[in-house]
Amino acid sequence: MKNQKRIRDYDVTIGTMQTGPLNAITDVAGVTVGHVTLSKGDMQTGVTAIKPHPGDLFHEKLIASSHVINGFGKTMGTIQMAELGVIETPIVLTNTLNVGTAANAVIDYMLEKNNDIGRTTGTVNPVVGECNDMFLNDVRGRFVKEEHVRRALDETYIEFEEGAVGAGRGMLCYSLKGGIGSASRMVELAHACYTIGVLVLSNFGMLSDLTIEGNPIGKKLKKQILQSLEEQDKGSVMVVVATDLPVSERQLNRILKRSVTGLSRTGSIITNGSGEIVLGFSTANKIPHTKPQHGLTIETIHEEDIDEAFRAVGEATEEAVLNSLITAESVVGRDGNSRPALKELLEKFNLSL
Amino acid sequence: MKNQKRIRDYDVTIGTMQTGPLNAITDVAGVTVGHVTLSKGDMQTGVTAIKPHPGDLFHEKLIASSHVINGFGKTMGTIQMAELGVIETPIVLTNTLNVGTAANAVIDYMLEKNNDIGRTTGTVNPVVGECNDMFLNDVRGRFVKEEHVRRALDETYIEFEEGAVGAGRGMLCYSLKGGIGSASRMVELAHACYTIGVLVLSNFGMLSDLTIEGNPIGKKLKKQILQSLEEQDKGSVMVVVATDLPVSERQLNRILKRSVTGLSRTGSIITNGSGEIVLGFSTANKIPHTKPQHGLTIETIHEEDIDEAFRAVGEATEEAVLNSLITAESVVGRDGNSRPALKELLEKFNLSL
Amino acid sequence: MKNQKRIRDYDVTIGTMQTGPLNAITDVAGVTVGHVTLSKGDMQTGVTAIKPHPGDLFHEKLIASSHVINGFGKTMGTIQMAELGVIETPIVLTNTLNVGTAANAVIDYMLEKNNDIGRTTGTVNPVVGECNDMFLNDVRGRFVKEEHVRRALDETYIEFEEGAVGAGRGMLCYSLKGGIGSASRMVELAHACYTIGVLVLSNFGMLSDLTIEGNPIGKKLKKQILQSLEEQDKGSVMVVVATDLPVSERQLNRILKRSVTGLSRTGSIITNGSGEIVLGFSTANKIPHTKPQHGLTIETIHEEDIDEAFRAVGEATEEAVLNSLITAESVVGRDGNSRPALKELLEKFNLSL
Amino acid sequence: MKNQKRIRDYDVTIGTMQTGPLNAITDVAGVTVGHVTLSKGDMQTGVTAIKPHPGDLFHEKLIASSHVINGFGKTMGTIQMAELGVIETPIVLTNTLNVGTAANAVIDYMLEKNNDIGRTTGTVNPVVGECNDMFLNDVRGRFVKEEHVRRALDETYIEFEEGAVGAGRGMLCYSLKGGIGSASRMVELAHACYTIGVLVLSNFGMLSDLTIEGNPIGKKLKKQILQSLEEQDKGSVMVVVATDLPVSERQLNRILKRSVTGLSRTGSIITNGSGEIVLGFSTANKIPHTKPQHGLTIETIHEEDIDEAFRAVGEATEEAVLNSLITAESVVGRDGNSRPALKELLEKFNLSL
Repeated sequence: MKNQKRIRDYDVTIGTMQTGPLNAITDVAGVTVGHVTLSKGDMQTGVTAIKPHPGDLFHEKLIASSHVINGFGKTMGTIQMAELGVIETPIVLTNTLNVGTAANAVIDYMLEKNNDIGRTTGTVNPVVGECNDMFLNDVRGRFVKEEHVRRALDETYIEFEEGAVGAGRGMLCYSLKGGIGSASRMVELAHACYTIGVLVLSNFGMLSDLTIEGNPIGKKLKKQILQSLEEQDKGSVMVVVATDLPVSERQLNRILKRSVTGLSRTGSIITNGSGEIVLGFSTANKIPHTKPQHGLTIETIHEEDIDEAFRAVGEATEEAVLNSLITAESVVGRDGNSRPALKELLEKFNLSL
Repeated sequence: MKNQKRIRDYDVTIGTMQTGPLNAITDVAGVTVGHVTLSKGDMQTGVTAIKPHPGDLFHEKLIASSHVINGFGKTMGTIQMAELGVIETPIVLTNTLNVGTAANAVIDYMLEKNNDIGRTTGTVNPVVGECNDMFLNDVRGRFVKEEHVRRALDETYIEFEEGAVGAGRGMLCYSLKGGIGSASRMVELAHACYTIGVLVLSNFGMLSDLTIEGNPIGKKLKKQILQSLEEQDKGSVMVVVATDLPVSERQLNRILKRSVTGLSRTGSIITNGSGEIVLGFSTANKIPHTKPQHGLTIETIHEEDIDEAFRAVGEATEEAVLNSLITAESVVGRDGNSRPALKELLEKFNLSL
Repeated sequence: MKNQKRIRDYDVTIGTMQTGPLNAITDVAGVTVGHVTLSKGDMQTGVTAIKPHPGDLFHEKLIASSHVINGFGKTMGTIQMAELGVIETPIVLTNTLNVGTAANAVIDYMLEKNNDIGRTTGTVNPVVGECNDMFLNDVRGRFVKEEHVRRALDETYIEFEEGAVGAGRGMLCYSLKGGIGSASRMVELAHACYTIGVLVLSNFGMLSDLTIEGNPIGKKLKKQILQSLEEQDKGSVMVVVATDLPVSERQLNRILKRSVTGLSRTGSIITNGSGEIVLGFSTANKIPHTKPQHGLTIETIHEEDIDEAFRAVGEATEEAVLNSLITAESVVGRDGNSRPALKELLEKFNLSL
Repeated sequence: MKNQKRIRDYDVTIGTMQTGPLNAITDVAGVTVGHVTLSKGDMQTGVTAIKPHPGDLFHEKLIASSHVINGFGKTMGTIQMAELGVIETPIVLTNTLNVGTAANAVIDYMLEKNNDIGRTTGTVNPVVGECNDMFLNDVRGRFVKEEHVRRALDETYIEFEEGAVGAGRGMLCYSLKGGIGSASRMVELAHACYTIGVLVLSNFGMLSDLTIEGNPIGKKLKKQILQSLEEQDKGSVMVVVATDLPVSERQLNRILKRSVTGLSRTGSIITNGSGEIVLGFSTANKIPHTKPQHGLTIETIHEEDIDEAFRAVGEATEEAVLNSLITAESVVGRDGNSRPALKELLEKFNLSL
């Protein structure tokens, strides 16, 4: 990744499974990530785009699913994903009040690439997730414009930054600076080896709950710093799961549901105000938009092989959250509001993980 | 079928699609149906068993799904069907207070056939549906015994009776005698021809709502007969859908949901007290219980081919309900309670359909 | 309503229950409807806004629910409605590719009215529904602008037009011109009398399936007019249900589910391409945004009183669809595409309903 | 409780909230628990009954809900709970293949107490949960008889045993002996203080995953004892949540969903074979079976007060699982299979928690 010190660089090892080469969602072949970060005064927000594959996603859809851990959120596009079991656009993450703008930009992007949409075939289902960054960002300013979303869609990479970047620019996690984090795990089955990658937009939790590998570091930090740091959790988390495991939408959905184990182990109690939504796709089967001559053949795993995927998604989600915390820089934003970075606090108070 | 005059014999043609040879759920190759009818005084109840295929269903499971139209019912087995997407036992229908007994009998039947259950592999998930026949049957008597269920499981056939038989013995439909009905439709796709078959256990509706091919026959009948016949709808309907269409559990679920169009067209408003649950399976893919060397390959249709299945299940459900009504004989049961048969009323009042 | 000839003016009486004074969703006290219609050449589209109550909806939320009949649609806002059981913005309906724009406009509207959003309290959850009007409207043009949505929100009335207006401007129903329709029913309980009102945005169905009060008028029309009129159903329907019945979100959801009976009786088979989504709210309980000193007290009906509401919503939905058809004018739109109006065809071919 | 050494007696304190007086589900006023334990040779199984209140539960129902974490299970009764939002019978837990028998016994019990069932009113919805105890118990023997269930229903108490008792007799947890455990938390709101109590039937997890308060005790134990102990997780967990918080069924459901945070913190990855189902009820509102003269009034909390309940249910679930482990005695059962008790291992290897 981008020369950032990640949680493993602090000798924290989450779980027992092997990571992919980058330990990131982009270890799943074909997946790329793009950020646009908006940072100036009261404007501390941005966009993160995840492209499931580099080809023509509208005509070669991927099996996809979503899972609502807590529905206090405004994510778009999940109704159709549930009904048809596929995703046909990139996934865009941004702040809560810019979901409409992001949807508009995704639609534009898809119309441009596909002349048939709205002419010889139906319309398109943009998938947009969000968290609320109102503490550091003037969310009422609605700073994200279609051009920002478009740039995030156009400039996606295999290596990408984590922390206070892209949609994560203004997010808080466990009352510290949060944002974008990622991790991956290898799933070795008898017949092949697969990858599960996770990207989170972290914006949830209260400091005293933060736990890293069983270490109640949040409680320790809270003793050291201002009580006033702690505030009611009004956050959210978006979890995006990519895999090349051949799975049905039902199996994928089962995998997505297990991401909550990773969130819980970092200390989350899944508060009321926290919209927590998981989106996922598998690159293993391409579902053609246009009806072929014959039926479709879908490759899936046998259910007895799914436990490794369950363990993988829990571990990768947990590590992705921790990566979002440990890579984030502190940010001063709206009305001078600020949040410290975990790495700075560890150094300042001479605490180890 | 069994020399009974069915709704088509009254020149009523539901929809536009072609029926299968028997116009019954058993037009789907491998599906068989067994009834045990208990009829004596206050005991007017029974069991109906549907076997999805003649082989070893536990080790060669079928893709399955269920849909709750109205959940005021006690059907067992749907949680696991939803999670794993398969059925591994026959489906048994009976009266509400004998669901436990039916489950016990199905478990016995499966243990007997599969020595590995509870020893070298896990347990088994019986699927049992029910309607409440308390008006004609002394449901508190709980007359169905495990031996009855077993007999229904052991003696299943391609041709079977409809009307006041099996689990349908004590059921009411549109305040008349209801019970078991069936129908089927052929689904012609470009690459092959498939069958959708439906079996209903009908126990819902108020007379004045009964509509046959747009004809408000219920209102006409109500004018003729005693007002006292009408009572509040406290019923239910079980709809069992079988098909040989290659479909995923998601696609199958979409098909099951469309059965409500057929129920609605007979006049149903889906009342509160009416548990209405749809169970379905596809025989096209066999899912092995034991993990194979490699992954699984699932055959499915392309989504654009699904409309014919949607039309088919609506038509077949509508016709199955009408067949349950028109084939039923009148029954006198508990405390002398009785319900007239539609065919007798049509004759008595010289009404045509 | 607005001097339009409605289905009852053709001597068609749907069901047995009494209508409200206007036979419209606005019979529920406090509900108002606003349209903005965009009609010029290839631009045949618009916006329809439904305001649940005239007060401060963000701070006095209403119990709300949604139900997905067919999820091939892009409706926004239902995740949070399901989680929290309330609605906090007006409902806006428009074409599929303008959902983002409509969301933006609703957010603006809410921010303007509520200075606390994004400052001292969290964000806001816009609810936007859509159908695809690409046959008559150049949907790729994305003609709906935020100012149009705003106007629809600002200018809402108790009496409103039906047919080819507002979001219904470019919609097709049963291969004829569809659009906006409404109806209502009175629900008389022992202790009080309530109203259920329905507004539909109709955009579904194939001509040969159209059935009016059991009359297969679609088949008759199809014989008369060009075969080429019929096309594959790629439509949708939005159903908005308002009531003053005191109901929990669970009870409201049960009521919403019954709207499918009305759709079915007009002939719908709920095709694949047809996103069919029901949104509803009850005005009986106001849920304060700000936590009060004590807990909340919610008024509900007893479950045994719910059947009348089930019947009402089915009847009102059926009649609303028929009103959308019979009030619509024929429209010529994109590339000269056109759809005839039902009323014109009836006259032309001298057919009665 | 019953003079058993519980996890707090090992100086393990889960979370930060205060427990109820007994630190058990029965801290919720009116809730009682009964066990029948069957232990002889290959028979190591039993029944646990939870009575939600001491009165006439059929006529004074409680608001109830369920949540499926993993649906690989055979729990009965949840369809109707979801539809109607109430529970009307005690909850019975037993082994997987005795669910039918338990249902029969609950039905008998309810018929005996309520002469109107199946006569002047409808039927009854038994709620039965299960886990698979086949390793220690000859589950094919189906040893639980209706009389055992009846005894568990008849003899319920406020103080009850934990560990290898009742339905927990043959269960494994983290490859050690598991079974019944309980815990509770006080929820202090501004206007009143409430209780949330949890009872678990624990039968899930692999030794190396076991974590107690962040301590990876499972990994430590695994190094000490035979590798052969570890086996594939084929287990389940039933979580029963009781509360006197005034909540709607929607709010209760949100609370139930948070129990997964407690399970996760003990180390669970929610494996495929593990049916994990949460059942819950609130004693705060009684819902009359018989329709009253007027509507119902339901007391609920404001959503902003729900976070304390979310924290409470996570903590109580975590502690209940640990109590099930630490109170359990080792059991030798079917074919000499045996599982050690955690407390014995801690002593044997001189490990502290």
